[in-house]
Parts: sequence; structure tokens; C-alpha cells
Amino acid sequence: MRPEAVNLAKKLALFRDLWSPKVVASFNGHDVMVVKVKGEFVWHAHSDTDDFFLVLSGRLTIDLRDGPVTLGPGELFVVPRGVEHRPRAEEETELLLIEPAGTPNTGNPATAAVKTRL
Amino acid sequence: MRPEAVNLAKKLALFRDLWSPKVVASFNGHDVMVVKVKGEFVWHAHSDTDDFFLVLSGRLTIDLRDGPVTLGPGELFVVPRGVEHRPRAEEETELLLIEPAGTPNTGNPATAAVKTRL
Repeated sequence: MRPEAVNLAKKLALFRDLWSPKVVASFNGHDVMVVKVKGEFVWHAHSDTDDFFLVLSGRLTIDLRDGPVTLGPGELFVVPRGVEHRPRAEEETELLLIEPAGTPNTGNPATAAVKTRL
Repeated sequence: MRPEAVNLAKKLALFRDLWSPKVVASFNGHDVMVVKVKGEFVWHAHSDTDDFFLVLSGRLTIDLRDGPVTLGPGELFVVPRGVEHRPRAEEETELLLIEPAGTPNTGNPATAAVKTRL
């Protein structure tokens, strides 16, 4: 199968639901996802995986136990494994996320969103 | 150590050399890099790793043996492991690359660029 380029804006135009990551590509056992967020997520940690966030539009704050990190478009942040964090956004914000395939977004399969593929 | 947000534009303003990836973050054994490219790279393949490209500015063509894929800003492409490819750009183009740490950019340690950390 011939691989295809992925246009992130076109993928983001396909859905409106919040906090529901959509897988747009995969590499080396990782899923590349786009997601729209607004409001507060839950405090959580991933014990075995680092968590990659890149802001595409809007503004994301990632609360850490020792203070917040705020990201605008073109800014990225890696939450190291085991570090408790809470993403939140006052305005609707679009993100690129990368996680090992199968990682629950809350760190807990029971409370995690189902990741669909676009 | 408190992790820091990474501003990609600020990192790209720190250097001018072409085809010389700079590591700006790491996660799950992978390096996240920014690079400026113009002209043609060499045909190469990575036998064990998929190769992630995201265009930040400019325009990148990735020649594959069965034809080219062209990417503009906000477009990404994964070259599957083992697939021969040649990146090229007519204008200076800025990319985000993700590879397992230690992956030679030409697929061959003897001809690879040294990756520095910004």
C-alpha cells in the first residue's frame, strides 16, 4: 500500500468531540493522534510512558504538582513517565499527541477514551 | 529537574546549517528533532525504524521508488521501515523529525550527520 501524507487541518475538520483522540498515523509502535480539548482533564500519570504534546492551535496548560506549563502553537512538551499531570484549556485547543499504541489516555484503561482512527 | 516547554520557532532561530538535525526533546527512547533542509538528500532506508516527518514551514518532497509524496506545513508522513526514500526541497524547509535515539539519518552510521542537542 502506498503511504499517504496526512494533513492535520483536514483531519481536525472531520470531528468536533472534545478529549477524544483520533489516530492519524503510526510509527515504531506509537500512535500519532489529533485531539480537540477545552476545559479540564483529570489528574493522571502514565507509569511506563512519556507523554508528548504539541499545540497546533489555541493554548494548553499542563498542570504539574510543582506548577503549570503553558503552551501555544508550535510549542511542545513531554511529560515524563510517572509524573502526575492535568491538561486544561480555556479556549478550544488542538493538539498533536504521540503515545505508544494502546496507552490509555487517563493512565487507566477503565476511564480512558476509545481512540478511533481517522 | 522541572521539564520545560519547547518552542520550535525559537529552536529553529538558533542555527542555519542544513540537513543537520538538532534534538529538542526526547520521549520513549525517541529523539524529537528540528532540521532545515534545502536541495536533495541521499536515497536511503532504515531497515528497523519508521521515519516520521512533519513540515513546519516550506515544502518537502519525499521521493519513493513508486513516486513522490509532497508535504506542506501541517502535513506529516511516515516512511515505513525498509522503504527507500529521498527527501528534497526546492526552498528552505523546516521539519520536525522523530526517530529512535541513535538512528543514523542516512540509515548508515558512516555517512550520518551528528545530531546535536539544542
